[in-house]
Amino acid sequence: MPVLTLAELQAHLGGTIRGSAKTRVGGVASLQHAEPHQLGFLLSPKYLAQARSSLAGALIVPDDLDAELPQACLAIANPHAAFARAVALLQPEPALEPGIHASAVIAEDARIGPDVRIGPGAVIGAGAHIGARCHIGALGVIGPDARLGEDCVLHARAVVMHGCILGNRVILHPGAVIGADGFGLVWDKENSGEIEGGRWLKVPQAGCVILEDDVEVGANTCIDRGALDDTVIETGVKLDNQIQIAHNCRIGRHTAIAACAGIAGSTTIGAYCQIGGAAMIIGHLNICDRVTVSAGTFVAKDIREPGVYTSVQPLMKHEDWKHNAAHLRRLDALVRRVKTLEEKLKEN
Amino acid sequence: MPVLTLAELQAHLGGTIRGSAKTRVGGVASLQHAEPHQLGFLLSPKYLAQARSSLAGALIVPDDLDAELPQACLAIANPHAAFARAVALLQPEPALEPGIHASAVIAEDARIGPDVRIGPGAVIGAGAHIGARCHIGALGVIGPDARLGEDCVLHARAVVMHGCILGNRVILHPGAVIGADGFGLVWDKENSGEIEGGRWLKVPQAGCVILEDDVEVGANTCIDRGALDDTVIETGVKLDNQIQIAHNCRIGRHTAIAACAGIAGSTTIGAYCQIGGAAMIIGHLNICDRVTVSAGTFVAKDIREPGVYTSVQPLMKHEDWKHNAAHLRRLDALVRRVKTLEEKLKEN
Amino acid sequence: MPVLTLAELQAHLGGTIRGSAKTRVGGVASLQHAEPHQLGFLLSPKYLAQARSSLAGALIVPDDLDAELPQACLAIANPHAAFARAVALLQPEPALEPGIHASAVIAEDARIGPDVRIGPGAVIGAGAHIGARCHIGALGVIGPDARLGEDCVLHARAVVMHGCILGNRVILHPGAVIGADGFGLVWDKENSGEIEGGRWLKVPQAGCVILEDDVEVGANTCIDRGALDDTVIETGVKLDNQIQIAHNCRIGRHTAIAACAGIAGSTTIGAYCQIGGAAMIIGHLNICDRVTVSAGTFVAKDIREPGVYTSVQPLMKHEDWKHNAAHLRRLDALVRRVKTLEEKLKEN
Repeated sequence: MPVLTLAELQAHLGGTIRGSAKTRVGGVASLQHAEPHQLGFLLSPKYLAQARSSLAGALIVPDDLDAELPQACLAIANPHAAFARAVALLQPEPALEPGIHASAVIAEDARIGPDVRIGPGAVIGAGAHIGARCHIGALGVIGPDARLGEDCVLHARAVVMHGCILGNRVILHPGAVIGADGFGLVWDKENSGEIEGGRWLKVPQAGCVILEDDVEVGANTCIDRGALDDTVIETGVKLDNQIQIAHNCRIGRHTAIAACAGIAGSTTIGAYCQIGGAAMIIGHLNICDRVTVSAGTFVAKDIREPGVYTSVQPLMKHEDWKHNAAHLRRLDALVRRVKTLEEKLKEN
Repeated sequence: MPVLTLAELQAHLGGTIRGSAKTRVGGVASLQHAEPHQLGFLLSPKYLAQARSSLAGALIVPDDLDAELPQACLAIANPHAAFARAVALLQPEPALEPGIHASAVIAEDARIGPDVRIGPGAVIGAGAHIGARCHIGALGVIGPDARLGEDCVLHARAVVMHGCILGNRVILHPGAVIGADGFGLVWDKENSGEIEGGRWLKVPQAGCVILEDDVEVGANTCIDRGALDDTVIETGVKLDNQIQIAHNCRIGRHTAIAACAGIAGSTTIGAYCQIGGAAMIIGHLNICDRVTVSAGTFVAKDIREPGVYTSVQPLMKHEDWKHNAAHLRRLDALVRRVKTLEEKLKEN
Repeated sequence: MPVLTLAELQAHLGGTIRGSAKTRVGGVASLQHAEPHQLGFLLSPKYLAQARSSLAGALIVPDDLDAELPQACLAIANPHAAFARAVALLQPEPALEPGIHASAVIAEDARIGPDVRIGPGAVIGAGAHIGARCHIGALGVIGPDARLGEDCVLHARAVVMHGCILGNRVILHPGAVIGADGFGLVWDKENSGEIEGGRWLKVPQAGCVILEDDVEVGANTCIDRGALDDTVIETGVKLDNQIQIAHNCRIGRHTAIAACAGIAGSTTIGAYCQIGGAAMIIGHLNICDRVTVSAGTFVAKDIREPGVYTSVQPLMKHEDWKHNAAHLRRLDALVRRVKTLEEKLKEN
């Protein structure tokens, strides 16, 4: 692990030093668990008491913090971003040697760029391109004719199906599935043969998935290939775990989507949006730029104005909820009762 | 890619040609992105303007379309189904050569039918049967004694656990897990040894999963094995991605379930149902045939009549929602206030 | 399959025999499907009719059951727990021979305990420890420096990322991902270079995941590694399929969480809780011990008292829902109307 002085950290991160610039730190930790050789961070005055009692040898703090602290500090405008960079400096991920593991199965005509690492048991299909310095983790699958840009990191067991295209610096976490078939079905009455009432006919999914530069896709998240056109995830989009993005969606640049969200087919989400966990957005909608959808919210119509949108039931004790739920079913009747009262009072 | 005339397409699909039967098409595309050698399709008059400006060389259109179009057209009763078939004709998926990859691990006593393809790194357990012309993708796992019918397609990294049974033409997408243990737990007070208050005892899951003919299972979808009896997915059921189907469920034939839905244990869903995305159905329920459950809907009681059922909160601006949510908590009080008013007015 | 007399079962399970202690059973089944050589079980008098017509050769029943049954019975205080144990006795899972499959890829410095079984294509990283009698299924991945206790069972295709720690008797089902990066992002305005308006900066996730003894994790469930401190799942916690547990959560001992639930970052859930399917709990909350959260419920605030909590919309026919949903949007107006009526009546 590297050890840096606060002065050296300042050279990388900017900011102003309070206390000794020679303070040395060799690792990062939370305020609560930091040891004296480690760097901690304080995002807001709310945690001042914790910071004061922390054993951390030095802290990154907001530059507008108006408080004395026992530790040497690096005061900086965006302390969270500075801390993220400090973690990368002080606890760098172990460098993996490039090289192709003997157990990987690489199609003869796949094109593998320089300094690529391919882990044990990974499978690279015919005609695939793997850009320079990509890392394909253990048991990853790159389908035929898929193309990866440079510096992509696919953790263990990610799948990129045939023909899908990844830009540069794309990260896929374990279990992510890029380019499985969209859920394209058409009800087929006429040609169902002996089957009463028809059956589902599969619509071949002839599009693919495009992940632009700096996209990150969480564990077990699925992005389906387009039916005819492509499913497109624009530059800098960040997707958490267990998300489902259906065929022909487009997610605008630098939008972040939290875990367990679902976006149904052909919906377009703008740039700089934030979609909360478990939010569900139905198909064929347009969500404009800079929209925040709260966690757990169900979106069934276009959103045309930036802002925060919500649709969740408030939590109650189950006994209270039972009463309220009964009223919810009879809300229409309640409204009529109020109307009747209003009319009677008018008559009076 | 095959190139066909409209007359040849008509021979496969039926319908009536408007314009030149000799028009040749060699691929499919959306109205917006089609090039002159490609076939497009128009499902409803809503998209007439787009169709008129499309560069597509020919279109599939509804046979009751009462409008002139610049392109040669094949007019047909179910244009969506016809187009799905046209895609399969004009952009057939690359035929994969049968054969067992050298890196696959096949148990000695597994029975592998003729013309099967088994991809790199796939694992076939002891006593498993793989029917004719099945395709097991890269890194797929077929557990001991599992049985696959004919013409199944398991994409990369699908798992079928021990003893599960697949019919013919079953499709599993990447990451699908068929036959993991159901969530069978019983609270065990008496035998918890040193543990205060008891602990969970695992109930062994001794049933299996049966997927009948023509079932399709989406990426990262899970179907749990039964506790004693089996979990059964009937003929023609289509499941999207990220769905959870718990132990001992039965899903009726030709029912379709959209992504992120969850069906809890021992629930039976009828035939010809449509379950919307992220719908959640609790355990031990009966849903009759021909029920539509809207996306995002929570089902906590039996449904005995065909129809459309819904239970979602409408979307609001967050500021409006805050007021409404407060009222939702006090709905019971509001109803009492209305009752008081009604009584007072009666007295008057 | 072993065959046991009721007397032998009683020796293992306790309880009182009604009828012939020599009755022999050789397998388990549901009341409905049992054959005469099989053992069935009856949990409550609700299913008495089914029990009476069941062909099962013997039954496990509650010891307070006041009813005659045609079958020999073992009457016992917790019949469900007794039956779970009987299944393990009568239908034991096939014992798997220890040994390391030739196709597994084991780092040279990994430490593998005695009697471990490692399946085909599994990958064990540098510095990993695998405790005695662990079973790593086909295509499992154990990252560098990860540590497994004794008697863990990892089914096919589970992933444990670098540095994560599992106790004894931990079970992971297929597709489970332990220790992928948490969704740590910070919005970075200053250093976004050419990008208008900023971009997301990834916060390195330097913590790990700790699964204590007897934890069970369902298929395709994800538990993210901590940002700085660890994500901790305490002793005896049971997690169903498709669950997302975000970074820095702590789940208290013997808590059970049903499928499709999501727990956002840094939330602490107490001991002996039960979280229903598809429940969603936002981040940075504290849920105390012995709380039940109903299925489909959204939790957005701390819960400080044991009890049952709920927040779901009741199901309606879609036509009724349309009216009610419109009223929900105007609830604030309705409350004002009632207030106006109340004031008018006071004036009268």
